[in-house]
Amino acid sequence: MSARFPASEYQARLARVQKDMEAHGLAALLLTTEADVRYLTGFLTRFWESPTRPWFLIVPASGQPISVIPAIGADLMRKTWIEDIRTWRSPNYADDGLSLLSKTLAEVAIGGPVGVPMEGGTHLRMPLSDWMSLTAHVPCSSDLGVMRRARMVKSAAEIEVIRDACAIAGRAFSRIGEIAGEGVPLSEVFRRFQMLCLEEGADHVPYIAGAAGCGGYGDVISPATSEPLKKSDVLMLDTGLTLDGYFCDYDRNFSIGPPDPHVADAHVRLIEATRAAFAVAQPGRTAADLFHAMDAALGGAGEDAGRLGHGLGMQLTEPPSLISADTTELSPGMVLTLEPGIMLPDGKLMVHEEDIVITERGADWLTSPAKEKITVI
Amino acid sequence: MSARFPASEYQARLARVQKDMEAHGLAALLLTTEADVRYLTGFLTRFWESPTRPWFLIVPASGQPISVIPAIGADLMRKTWIEDIRTWRSPNYADDGLSLLSKTLAEVAIGGPVGVPMEGGTHLRMPLSDWMSLTAHVPCSSDLGVMRRARMVKSAAEIEVIRDACAIAGRAFSRIGEIAGEGVPLSEVFRRFQMLCLEEGADHVPYIAGAAGCGGYGDVISPATSEPLKKSDVLMLDTGLTLDGYFCDYDRNFSIGPPDPHVADAHVRLIEATRAAFAVAQPGRTAADLFHAMDAALGGAGEDAGRLGHGLGMQLTEPPSLISADTTELSPGMVLTLEPGIMLPDGKLMVHEEDIVITERGADWLTSPAKEKITVI
Repeated sequence: MSARFPASEYQARLARVQKDMEAHGLAALLLTTEADVRYLTGFLTRFWESPTRPWFLIVPASGQPISVIPAIGADLMRKTWIEDIRTWRSPNYADDGLSLLSKTLAEVAIGGPVGVPMEGGTHLRMPLSDWMSLTAHVPCSSDLGVMRRARMVKSAAEIEVIRDACAIAGRAFSRIGEIAGEGVPLSEVFRRFQMLCLEEGADHVPYIAGAAGCGGYGDVISPATSEPLKKSDVLMLDTGLTLDGYFCDYDRNFSIGPPDPHVADAHVRLIEATRAAFAVAQPGRTAADLFHAMDAALGGAGEDAGRLGHGLGMQLTEPPSLISADTTELSPGMVLTLEPGIMLPDGKLMVHEEDIVITERGADWLTSPAKEKITVI
Repeated sequence: MSARFPASEYQARLARVQKDMEAHGLAALLLTTEADVRYLTGFLTRFWESPTRPWFLIVPASGQPISVIPAIGADLMRKTWIEDIRTWRSPNYADDGLSLLSKTLAEVAIGGPVGVPMEGGTHLRMPLSDWMSLTAHVPCSSDLGVMRRARMVKSAAEIEVIRDACAIAGRAFSRIGEIAGEGVPLSEVFRRFQMLCLEEGADHVPYIAGAAGCGGYGDVISPATSEPLKKSDVLMLDTGLTLDGYFCDYDRNFSIGPPDPHVADAHVRLIEATRAAFAVAQPGRTAADLFHAMDAALGGAGEDAGRLGHGLGMQLTEPPSLISADTTELSPGMVLTLEPGIMLPDGKLMVHEEDIVITERGADWLTSPAKEKITVI
């Protein structure tokens, strides 16, 4: 499944990245995270779950990326389009790849700084002590958003995978009646829903969230408790399953038996909010415009409602953020979630989420958007 | 499920950490990763899968930890034993928690540096640009291994959860015949095995790896292909499922029909190697001693075979590493994997893995150790 994209996909990504590097005077990029490394290589493995070893990809101003990785990854890297694969035996307490990395950067990064993703939403996945040693003699600076800009606009091939991931979750959601109902503990619903996602074709289910309650729910990031679903509870399930390393990220609300009137009404308004954002979603508009469209549809709770959506792709959440401060201009290929939230009486909450892609003329749904009327189990 | 441990568990962890901080002259700790934050708080959520927002925990020299977190996490943090919860609305492009973090550190860190985990196997989960701003006015240095030492020795409560996680995987492995056999694509085996893990009680399956081949397999970190299992293939499945946020990490080999003689023999030798390590595993011996015990049992391939095991807990892999350079002294409560590997003809490979815990007098198996004779499907 790592071979879904041909080498031409990665060559096109690299060309865009290198063009942007040139525009910003960067001699090279140093990438350390799973998503950034995979974006330019196709190196797909769950092995990043192990924090022990650092992995490096160096992107020169021209020519192929160079992978500087633990020997345990060499066989898999050889299956990608990357030809220059340099390895060391890791873990090595005396020198865990640092001298090989330094030597490679010295070869490649000439006449400019090495760009490293360092702005909001990023982190450096290598020991900080090694970073300090490296930067004592290699000039590193911000990548000035090069990786952010490249990854934010998805290729046709990427959009197709995300659409397929959404369809898998859609089939799992349509089978919810098989696993949820009055008396079933929420923890069991979480477990069984992950099984449905896998059965319908997910490779993995890295993210699942949800909540249930009468007249709305509390926070939406807590793990499931063993409390059983009760009649007229509203149940929300949010899934970030992956297919070929790409996420979907959307949720569905269900009512256990006839819905509470507040819940039924809130659901209608949430759907209307996503439609309002969808209606304005087109090239030239901004992330903030989508925020304001949903915010207005919900009566203007404003920033208190939090972020109302975000980018989506190789990570569950990516730039941009649908907040009033994000002036990112929408362009064809951007994949976004629309995620309005609404407050209900007694401090309860409901959220709803759909996935869309910006097209030349407007936007397409990647999910089959939910109807106004909440689904009753 | 986040409430499996009582507050006393976290108080005991904090006491150990603060004692070690005092011994090393640290005025505070700054923690940023999921596992480090959860270790001292119990804050358990899959929401870390979203890379957008940073999360901070500050551990003062005395008194409770202070959480400095995005507002979206406040409700869940309130369910933990942590009382001092400071929040900001994130994402905030102008100031994503940095001023609140700086202010809190200024209050707390007096008369010494702020320790940050920065040695091998760690990383800093916050934007590097914010780290640079912070350290321009707050003196930060290495935590000198405080978090490593604390987390490496598990409490009785932690060991019990890991044992339960191992038992779940054990039940899934015992049902392998239901999902694997001649003609079944490996990708389908991966998917169905995750479903078995969930059905047997796993909360999540963050890690799955495996491989199959005639007379052994190639690398063990590649994703599954759709190639069907063939008669006399050896199939290896390695699982890192979680229960209450704790991992098991072990594998099992199976033969599809009667085993190839090389495979049958290699399996015996791998089991003998884990037994050899188990026999010497006791307080006072070292991580390197376990490496050498397995290495000798396998005929002394030495470091070429790579790491022969590692710590295990809130992360799939933790310190120490079973390599000759790791002189960490074993002590009661350390949970380790024993993971020998062996080369077969034609560049093929086989691996085997068990989980153990060091006790006062020796070690206990956390897995039901495999028999010499490879299981035939």
